[in-house]
Amino acid sequence: MQRVDGRRWDQPRPIKITPGFQEFAEGSALIETGATKVLCSASMEERVPAFLRGQGQGWVTAEYEMLPRSTNTRTSRDRDSGRVSGRSQEIQRLIGRALRAATNLEAMGERTVQIDCDVIQADGGTRTAAITGAYVALYQAFKLLVDHRVLRQVPLRAAVAATSVGLVDDEVMLDLCYKEDFRAQVDFNVVLTDRGELVELQGATEASPFPRHRVSEVLSLACRGVEPLFRAQQEAISRLR
Amino acid sequence: MQRVDGRRWDQPRPIKITPGFQEFAEGSALIETGATKVLCSASMEERVPAFLRGQGQGWVTAEYEMLPRSTNTRTSRDRDSGRVSGRSQEIQRLIGRALRAATNLEAMGERTVQIDCDVIQADGGTRTAAITGAYVALYQAFKLLVDHRVLRQVPLRAAVAATSVGLVDDEVMLDLCYKEDFRAQVDFNVVLTDRGELVELQGATEASPFPRHRVSEVLSLACRGVEPLFRAQQEAISRLR
Amino acid sequence: MQRVDGRRWDQPRPIKITPGFQEFAEGSALIETGATKVLCSASMEERVPAFLRGQGQGWVTAEYEMLPRSTNTRTSRDRDSGRVSGRSQEIQRLIGRALRAATNLEAMGERTVQIDCDVIQADGGTRTAAITGAYVALYQAFKLLVDHRVLRQVPLRAAVAATSVGLVDDEVMLDLCYKEDFRAQVDFNVVLTDRGELVELQGATEASPFPRHRVSEVLSLACRGVEPLFRAQQEAISRLR
Amino acid sequence: MQRVDGRRWDQPRPIKITPGFQEFAEGSALIETGATKVLCSASMEERVPAFLRGQGQGWVTAEYEMLPRSTNTRTSRDRDSGRVSGRSQEIQRLIGRALRAATNLEAMGERTVQIDCDVIQADGGTRTAAITGAYVALYQAFKLLVDHRVLRQVPLRAAVAATSVGLVDDEVMLDLCYKEDFRAQVDFNVVLTDRGELVELQGATEASPFPRHRVSEVLSLACRGVEPLFRAQQEAISRLR
Amino acid sequence: MQRVDGRRWDQPRPIKITPGFQEFAEGSALIETGATKVLCSASMEERVPAFLRGQGQGWVTAEYEMLPRSTNTRTSRDRDSGRVSGRSQEIQRLIGRALRAATNLEAMGERTVQIDCDVIQADGGTRTAAITGAYVALYQAFKLLVDHRVLRQVPLRAAVAATSVGLVDDEVMLDLCYKEDFRAQVDFNVVLTDRGELVELQGATEASPFPRHRVSEVLSLACRGVEPLFRAQQEAISRLR
Amino acid sequence: MQRVDGRRWDQPRPIKITPGFQEFAEGSALIETGATKVLCSASMEERVPAFLRGQGQGWVTAEYEMLPRSTNTRTSRDRDSGRVSGRSQEIQRLIGRALRAATNLEAMGERTVQIDCDVIQADGGTRTAAITGAYVALYQAFKLLVDHRVLRQVPLRAAVAATSVGLVDDEVMLDLCYKEDFRAQVDFNVVLTDRGELVELQGATEASPFPRHRVSEVLSLACRGVEPLFRAQQEAISRLR
Repeated sequence: MQRVDGRRWDQPRPIKITPGFQEFAEGSALIETGATKVLCSASMEERVPAFLRGQGQGWVTAEYEMLPRSTNTRTSRDRDSGRVSGRSQEIQRLIGRALRAATNLEAMGERTVQIDCDVIQADGGTRTAAITGAYVALYQAFKLLVDHRVLRQVPLRAAVAATSVGLVDDEVMLDLCYKEDFRAQVDFNVVLTDRGELVELQGATEASPFPRHRVSEVLSLACRGVEPLFRAQQEAISRLR
Repeated sequence: MQRVDGRRWDQPRPIKITPGFQEFAEGSALIETGATKVLCSASMEERVPAFLRGQGQGWVTAEYEMLPRSTNTRTSRDRDSGRVSGRSQEIQRLIGRALRAATNLEAMGERTVQIDCDVIQADGGTRTAAITGAYVALYQAFKLLVDHRVLRQVPLRAAVAATSVGLVDDEVMLDLCYKEDFRAQVDFNVVLTDRGELVELQGATEASPFPRHRVSEVLSLACRGVEPLFRAQQEAISRLR
Repeated sequence: MQRVDGRRWDQPRPIKITPGFQEFAEGSALIETGATKVLCSASMEERVPAFLRGQGQGWVTAEYEMLPRSTNTRTSRDRDSGRVSGRSQEIQRLIGRALRAATNLEAMGERTVQIDCDVIQADGGTRTAAITGAYVALYQAFKLLVDHRVLRQVPLRAAVAATSVGLVDDEVMLDLCYKEDFRAQVDFNVVLTDRGELVELQGATEASPFPRHRVSEVLSLACRGVEPLFRAQQEAISRLR
Repeated sequence: MQRVDGRRWDQPRPIKITPGFQEFAEGSALIETGATKVLCSASMEERVPAFLRGQGQGWVTAEYEMLPRSTNTRTSRDRDSGRVSGRSQEIQRLIGRALRAATNLEAMGERTVQIDCDVIQADGGTRTAAITGAYVALYQAFKLLVDHRVLRQVPLRAAVAATSVGLVDDEVMLDLCYKEDFRAQVDFNVVLTDRGELVELQGATEASPFPRHRVSEVLSLACRGVEPLFRAQQEAISRLR
Repeated sequence: MQRVDGRRWDQPRPIKITPGFQEFAEGSALIETGATKVLCSASMEERVPAFLRGQGQGWVTAEYEMLPRSTNTRTSRDRDSGRVSGRSQEIQRLIGRALRAATNLEAMGERTVQIDCDVIQADGGTRTAAITGAYVALYQAFKLLVDHRVLRQVPLRAAVAATSVGLVDDEVMLDLCYKEDFRAQVDFNVVLTDRGELVELQGATEASPFPRHRVSEVLSLACRGVEPLFRAQQEAISRLR
Repeated sequence: MQRVDGRRWDQPRPIKITPGFQEFAEGSALIETGATKVLCSASMEERVPAFLRGQGQGWVTAEYEMLPRSTNTRTSRDRDSGRVSGRSQEIQRLIGRALRAATNLEAMGERTVQIDCDVIQADGGTRTAAITGAYVALYQAFKLLVDHRVLRQVPLRAAVAATSVGLVDDEVMLDLCYKEDFRAQVDFNVVLTDRGELVELQGATEASPFPRHRVSEVLSLACRGVEPLFRAQQEAISRLR
């Protein structure tokens, strides 16, 4: 089947990660997957939320928001309603869980890393791009603590990255752009570690319940699809001073 | 392995569905799974949200909230912050998607069913109980339209029900209660149709990335686990006048 | 005059109180008066609001909310506006005052009891039912402290219960259901102790100013009307383990 | 018993009503009772709330707020919380009901009068002063319609005014100032028409349940207490051009 | 050119300042300039905002709000939206800066003065009237500390007052009333000290960019225009007990 | 005097404008002045706000927000408080006025251009950079209408750009970076057209009232300082396809 942008069914979009995009942050990365652009930053704070105080561990949490004109028609700012949209809530909770699963919370000490993912341009896959880019920002923020000899080593257990797989006209397809996502019967987001283990798996349909056996097909494709993402992360990290 | 309440690893909690619990609603059901109790209602409105107007189809959407004292310590009301908590957002979006996947939106006409799921007592599995109970309330609301000869038949393509499966000490376990959920390394929520097809699959961990092959184990167990739920739904529906 | 549900002018609706409805709360009661159902819970906290700190006394306060589908047409949740509706504010302040008047705040120690009254079904008289039911939940929460030998005795000075009296077509009527309430020219809510003393008296009209002498008629009827409520409270309390 | 400001038990504070205090409003009055000062305005709009549309009647509604420095220590503005305080809600609902009871809503046509009561200085009795002053503002706004020949006559059925009565050390006392209000065991607010009929009666205690028979004492005193208020209203109205 | 109210181009409106209008405040003044009336109060608190703690200096800050019926048509209260309007924000920030520039923040000690400016009637120039009146309230609040021997002298470096100048039909005009303000091409607000120095200068146009040289004309006129304001402030201050 | 970054007193920071940064917007530009980076977009809507309906003119309005990690320490999102901060309000009102002054609102037709200015990195001068960059985005959006033959020509009367001038140690300085801004006694923001006319002038001090004559010095320097900005705008516009 011909894809809207000419890719093969199992071909991801070009990936580009620019570390250090926001100079004043402890960690920062601009990630681009095709036309999707997400700016990720990591802010280190020397305290933990109330529910963790005195437990000798740290915390990683995330916020996600779209710039008003990241989309084809302008979206109003969350501040206008004073509410985080349901979709943003769902996404930022996913990002937070994925990064916590990658982090050794005990080893990081009583600190919080606040991840901010701001979507500059949205062409599908912003949540998976956010996870992939945020990992680099998180790494950079932890590296700063290592450079300052506050920590002995970067307290990350594994790299995490994420991609999407869709069922479009009953065929599996990797890394959907917006037009494909719109047409997909079923949409999976898969978060993996660089050891090939699963961190999170979400598959949903609003119209086309699907047989169980397709799940393994999806997982295989996702596992292959995250490989270039892990390489791009490594390459970006190697460029950090 | 011995479970906290003496169940076998593949044994669900007792299930009870009382249809018509709120007399003034078009559809209503109180669902109890073990100590978990969720009150579900369905409200029919003769209009659709702005984005669907004039498209000849209906809509099903859901809200989820916990009563302040459904939990062991009191939780403050969402109205105090003027915000739906991230967790509630995530859950009510899941409930809405699951029920829309079960519904023939074209056949229901330009109407909206608003589902309300209010948790009276929370002992784990409130989101899966909410989906299972809300299906009965939704059925009752549609049946009312059939009884009044507004619709020819109930516009539902399949029954949907949901259950949870966890990995606790590396063993899969069905239908976790709160104490088990708290200890689980990985937590899956699985929404299925009564034809055995998947509607939604969510598996997440905050600490223990897991190998891909466990997913099929989880899906098998979930498929068996929802069977008594479909029977309870049928039994409740058969009692509707 | 014939009442809509066949009752005599001075006949209250059937009353039923189920204590312990929410198992995880310190105190809880489901009260049903006719078709009106209110779930009341009492949560004990070992601290007082800022304005009472260090004064050697406790506090009792209340929240009131209607489930969206407690009414004939769905009411949106208070969380959507981020505001407690004026009506709910008025009612929950009334409930709080009534229970404080019943409580020996000095004897209860520096604690707060938070009362939650959630209306499951609304057929008139929800505020008076809430007061009557909340008293049982409050009693149960205090009894728990006595059972644990934290307090010597339940710090309640009197039982409180409440009922409504209306002037409908110039006749006084006890315990109005929704249809009667809608037609009433004047509406009284009366809170009494089991010693026959008044705690709160509210009489209001939006259209028919009334002569002063009717107030004593109203008070007489209310005093008789609360008797079965006090009996139901006692009966419920006697069933607490 | 000696009162804090030397008044007799049945003596009201000096009353002064300045009509037309806000020149741009359809109706306006500054009312002063002792040190209490409330600015009342009436705004006429040529439409009714949604629930009354097409029913051939009008509406009167009220808002109440305290200026931050009307009190001894500064109170923060309601806008900071984005919420009307419970107390303000309770009061503005009372003001609205009282004025609606005085108004012939059918005769006023499909219009809304929005009453605003802003407390400039608070020394007890602000809610009763607000009702008494708002009546003058309401009258002036209706008179403007009569002057412009939109209405034939002022659509008011009666004048309404309000006063407070307290039980202090078991004695009834008229028109409590702040210090007396603070010490009162029981506090009544009574709204009356100039024909001596009751519009609203609220009596409450937080600590001292009281015998039924005291209510008639209270009502007698209130009836006498509102007489100078009706005279002051008449005098203010007579000064309107 | 004839002005709408018959004034000369360089003639200010009559000014009147009534100190002590709100008796319970540490400082208070009602300022009237023509039909514009602003009630200003100053509240002294023995603490500073978090960002100043322990720095041995004080703070002065301001809030500004319009009463709903200060304007020709009713404006809804800021509390309804839970937001301070952009215009109010802009104005209250201006008032705060102007008064801080007049105050010796070190000399006042670790205290905060909260200024409240509530517009009772708005006929143009409310922000400049607010600054001029607030200075008197601030002086009175500081004088109280001097009277109580907490401070040796009033910690004010200079008096501040403000006026507006507009370009209407290419002519400069002093102290615009609402109708003139509405027609002005360019609108300046100028805050000055009684030593003739500038504190703040804001000139803006939405339609008619203007040549640079007009700024000096505007400043000359403003300097003359504030003279009667400083005299009125002095006169008001001399009347403080 | 030596400036912190080695510039001369009258030397602006390097300026760079990248048009079309957000591909999905009608107009967009990333502006960089030194380390300050602001992303500006223009969204065209075929309707006007309610207060302009049917008046045959258009509207231009602006929103301004800082990304959480644009600053040295993380700033929380406006959505958390549900309020636009006072500073953001002040700035976005300034941006809107400046662009409206440049636009022929009648010629643009009944449309609204919504400008969004999101600060990616903040090193002083974000509001002036936002105005300068937003002009390019606005031009691009209007040009699109010309390209589609909806308008005959771009409805802009002049280019607008803005810069800041400060008084630091009594010397005037152009285009302050954050460290200079922090030390400045007086801070001016000046908006000019490319014809050398003033659109807005804001000069403020919190501590050092200044003599009138310095204003002309400031204006001279600002006039020279905006020249490279107008050149950069022209160059960016010439690159638009």
